[in-house]
Amino acid sequence: SEYIAPCDCRRAFISGFDGSAGTAIVTEQHAAMWTDGRYFLQAAHQMDNNWTLMKMGLKDTPTQEDWLVSVLPEGSKVGVDPFIIPADQWKRMSKALRSAGHDLVPVKENLIDTIWTDCPQRPCKPLITLDPSYTGVSWRDKIVALRSKMAERKVLWFVVTALDEVAWLFNLRGSDVEYNPVFFAYAVIGMNTIRLFIDGDRMMDPAVREHLQLDSTLEPEFKIQVMPYGSILSELQAVGAGLSPKEKVWLSDKASYALTEAIPKAYRYLTPYTPICIAKAVKNASETEGMRRAHIKDAVALCELFNWLEKEVVPKGTVTEIIAADKAEEFRSQQKDFVELSFATISSTGPNGAIIHYKPVPETNRTLSVNEIYLLDSGAQYKDGTTDVTRTMHFGIPSAYEKECFTYVLKGHIAVSAAIFPNGTKGHLLDSFARSALWDCGLDYLHGTGHGVGSFLNVHEGPCGISYKTFADEPLEAGMIVSDEPGYYEDGSFGVRIENVVLVIPAETKYNFKNRGSLTFEPLTLVPIQTKMIDVNLLTQKECNWVNDYHQKCREVIGAELERQGRHEALRWLIQETEPLVRVQ
Amino acid sequence: SEYIAPCDCRRAFISGFDGSAGTAIVTEQHAAMWTDGRYFLQAAHQMDNNWTLMKMGLKDTPTQEDWLVSVLPEGSKVGVDPFIIPADQWKRMSKALRSAGHDLVPVKENLIDTIWTDCPQRPCKPLITLDPSYTGVSWRDKIVALRSKMAERKVLWFVVTALDEVAWLFNLRGSDVEYNPVFFAYAVIGMNTIRLFIDGDRMMDPAVREHLQLDSTLEPEFKIQVMPYGSILSELQAVGAGLSPKEKVWLSDKASYALTEAIPKAYRYLTPYTPICIAKAVKNASETEGMRRAHIKDAVALCELFNWLEKEVVPKGTVTEIIAADKAEEFRSQQKDFVELSFATISSTGPNGAIIHYKPVPETNRTLSVNEIYLLDSGAQYKDGTTDVTRTMHFGIPSAYEKECFTYVLKGHIAVSAAIFPNGTKGHLLDSFARSALWDCGLDYLHGTGHGVGSFLNVHEGPCGISYKTFADEPLEAGMIVSDEPGYYEDGSFGVRIENVVLVIPAETKYNFKNRGSLTFEPLTLVPIQTKMIDVNLLTQKECNWVNDYHQKCREVIGAELERQGRHEALRWLIQETEPLVRVQ
Repeated sequence: SEYIAPCDCRRAFISGFDGSAGTAIVTEQHAAMWTDGRYFLQAAHQMDNNWTLMKMGLKDTPTQEDWLVSVLPEGSKVGVDPFIIPADQWKRMSKALRSAGHDLVPVKENLIDTIWTDCPQRPCKPLITLDPSYTGVSWRDKIVALRSKMAERKVLWFVVTALDEVAWLFNLRGSDVEYNPVFFAYAVIGMNTIRLFIDGDRMMDPAVREHLQLDSTLEPEFKIQVMPYGSILSELQAVGAGLSPKEKVWLSDKASYALTEAIPKAYRYLTPYTPICIAKAVKNASETEGMRRAHIKDAVALCELFNWLEKEVVPKGTVTEIIAADKAEEFRSQQKDFVELSFATISSTGPNGAIIHYKPVPETNRTLSVNEIYLLDSGAQYKDGTTDVTRTMHFGIPSAYEKECFTYVLKGHIAVSAAIFPNGTKGHLLDSFARSALWDCGLDYLHGTGHGVGSFLNVHEGPCGISYKTFADEPLEAGMIVSDEPGYYEDGSFGVRIENVVLVIPAETKYNFKNRGSLTFEPLTLVPIQTKMIDVNLLTQKECNWVNDYHQKCREVIGAELERQGRHEALRWLIQETEPLVRVQ
Repeated sequence: SEYIAPCDCRRAFISGFDGSAGTAIVTEQHAAMWTDGRYFLQAAHQMDNNWTLMKMGLKDTPTQEDWLVSVLPEGSKVGVDPFIIPADQWKRMSKALRSAGHDLVPVKENLIDTIWTDCPQRPCKPLITLDPSYTGVSWRDKIVALRSKMAERKVLWFVVTALDEVAWLFNLRGSDVEYNPVFFAYAVIGMNTIRLFIDGDRMMDPAVREHLQLDSTLEPEFKIQVMPYGSILSELQAVGAGLSPKEKVWLSDKASYALTEAIPKAYRYLTPYTPICIAKAVKNASETEGMRRAHIKDAVALCELFNWLEKEVVPKGTVTEIIAADKAEEFRSQQKDFVELSFATISSTGPNGAIIHYKPVPETNRTLSVNEIYLLDSGAQYKDGTTDVTRTMHFGIPSAYEKECFTYVLKGHIAVSAAIFPNGTKGHLLDSFARSALWDCGLDYLHGTGHGVGSFLNVHEGPCGISYKTFADEPLEAGMIVSDEPGYYEDGSFGVRIENVVLVIPAETKYNFKNRGSLTFEPLTLVPIQTKMIDVNLLTQKECNWVNDYHQKCREVIGAELERQGRHEALRWLIQETEPLVRVQ
């Protein structure tokens, strides 16, 4: 999981480094921690000198395997918790160690847990049930569709291991993990059985019992057997032991080594993306409508925020990054069906804006001013949808260079958003469109252009995205939702990013080659893009029209909602911010 | 190899199908042949009903492994010639067969060869030596550079298996295979030894002996041991048997199973691209200058051809696709250092132009007319370089739709050719630029946009290219040479393709993000693009300027050469075809 619960922060416990990515390895003589470029400074700062920081991505940094081979005495055993290592990673590491005469062994009890005396409890928070007006499809129909995919591939069992896939399948949400509305659970779906592995008295909640029809007389194939979270391994081993030849069990290749090993190798059917992952990515009409509603509410909150910021920052200069982030959360929480934020707000001004994964803390907290660019990347979970939006603005007079960079980023944003492309196109083929204007001037940004977005689920989800990294992304199809977020970062001075969440929709084209059909994007995010930051002369007429059409839509849709909510000051701000651009020919 | 010698056309011998791609499998009961979409019609036509055509890429077509498993009796052995199956393919197939209880076994003698009584001899044609004025670097310096790459990777031996890599390394060329100026040979390079495995009396040629310094007293590490082509396996086995732990042998992972197996697994160092492949792709100043000269001569030949075609086709209507192709070869052969064509000329008019890999034969041969689009994709091997150019033209009045499609293709061609991108960018990230204008109207083409081009070597070479297929391409760097050839094909009516060979060069940009530097392309091909086919109103001013600048350069550079060669009619044609476009604002 991208976000984890406090009880799973074992690397932070042992090393002190609490960034979102890193692996610690402890031997009798050494302790080393691998992390990537985002976290070199933070990790060096947080770890003491017992630890060696391994800077991933640098040429001279050994891989974990190579380092182990270099420090271990002959014939060593390397222990790993088999529940937290993906099967594919186990395989790679095990092979490398074996070829050097060592062994990778699964430990029965996680060694950190045995010494972490004040380890917090695994969260077990109440569940939220979602009826089909939110999800569009009942969990029963999702099970039916899943079983038909299983029949197609001739597998008898499907093991649901990703938390968001369990939540999606049963139309349930939780809050066991911050920002991701998921809950700790596994599920094993057979052709005639459904087993849900989940702890706590949350299954005693009458609403949940009713939702899952636990007390109804149901056809046996829809009867859910609720089992303890910890019994997944033994239950799966029992399934594995009972298989006949040609009976297969479907697992994600990212499932843990422990669960994968429970099924004998000959019976495993592993795929990079599960049928749930793919079905979940294509939003149905109810989910799309929910996402639209969520984005309208989110835009209302941001119009309030930006209006408030202009009134506070310009004359008073008392707003810090943290205050702005808190204010954004406050405005969002006033909206209907607000649940929580969808990730830690990136509220950054001036040089902090150039730190791509910045999160304001007291030591770095800067005050917003009329002299610096302000970048806000934030989003929320509403019961009807998940948002993620970035706007970059100046409260004074931006420099020509700042406007120039902003305009290139905007051109890239528009190039993706307005792109028309054939059905079957993978997202990575669109990534260069976002960079072309920057490249022309020798500029670039070192992150992908977009990620899949869940529907009241994880703000980052597979299997699609827009990135120069060619991973095994699935082709884009109508109903998928991704972000479009090119940027530019000038180290030590400022950051620019313009992010909308966009929906993949069919495009009307003049011709239709081989009847393939075409796709394009519709922005779900409807928040003004600061025209003060745009150098209009760098836009083509087409780009200029795109901005004006987009602002016209913001004015109509968000204006109506601001009006309805009686937020007149924010409405005045919206009207002012959506004045059409005029390009001098 | 993409092109093979007649003695290696075993699949054509056994099945009758002589396309450039296909695999035949014969069992006691069945015979099946797998090929791709380009060849479904041809294969069906050429094979008799003993054969089952397996249409690759269609959903219901089994893989070779699946088909074998479905037809073989239990515990079968599947034989394959280990010298013609790449090691990676062997591994995949062997694994699949083994898991179904069968065995993949290497056969000692190719079974086709035992029944192919009139099999032609393996060619053994004389060699051409290239001095450093062509190659820029002596073979000795190439060996030194290779050994330094070997030392970096801590390998003691390097096995050269690709024919173009052997030719490049020794600055030799041959004509054992049509279109590819290579010769049958292997080489094994040690830190102190050089073994060249090659047959025939071509090593008796004094020029070759002098070039390779076979009779000079040399430092032992540059002394070439010439050995029979057929002794490679036993020599490599001897190398393999003499290795101590940690001594490695470097092979391409595309080397044959036979040669790969000669080295015990623990001693193999396999990479997708060899250091020779990568060094060969980056052309030095002498090679670049040679390529420029070759493209100037090639343009002269095409100006002559197109001028001749206009004078023959328009009033007389007696020119067929084959006559045009022959005439193109005739004009090319008049140029200095012409060796042969670089591939079979695609000379196609009207509906034949929509067949992407068309080659005119008497049964399909159409007559060029004033009513149809003509597409010519052709190229040659000159001693100083390899060319590959496509031009699409109309000898009468093109329809508005034909012009529209041509203009979209041209916009795509320009988008790639004029693209500026950071150092380190892989070619596949540029592919969508070539399609964007077509996509906007719902059109596309089903092939990649560009391939690497050798320097008096194979017209298709790795490790770079421009394609939507994300293969393991190496980043583009200054000195690499690729083709830029988007197209559009209207089945049954016409084909459009505009292809230049372009050189990767450093680009000057306003800024220089992280000091990475930028790259762009310089067209080496300088042949007019027919302005009659362009709908100027669909071009931006920038695109219009690109065409005019390109034509200005054609006029200057090719004009001077036509003048020098006294080809005045062709010069008049060039002047007329390079009149600037005027865009109505």
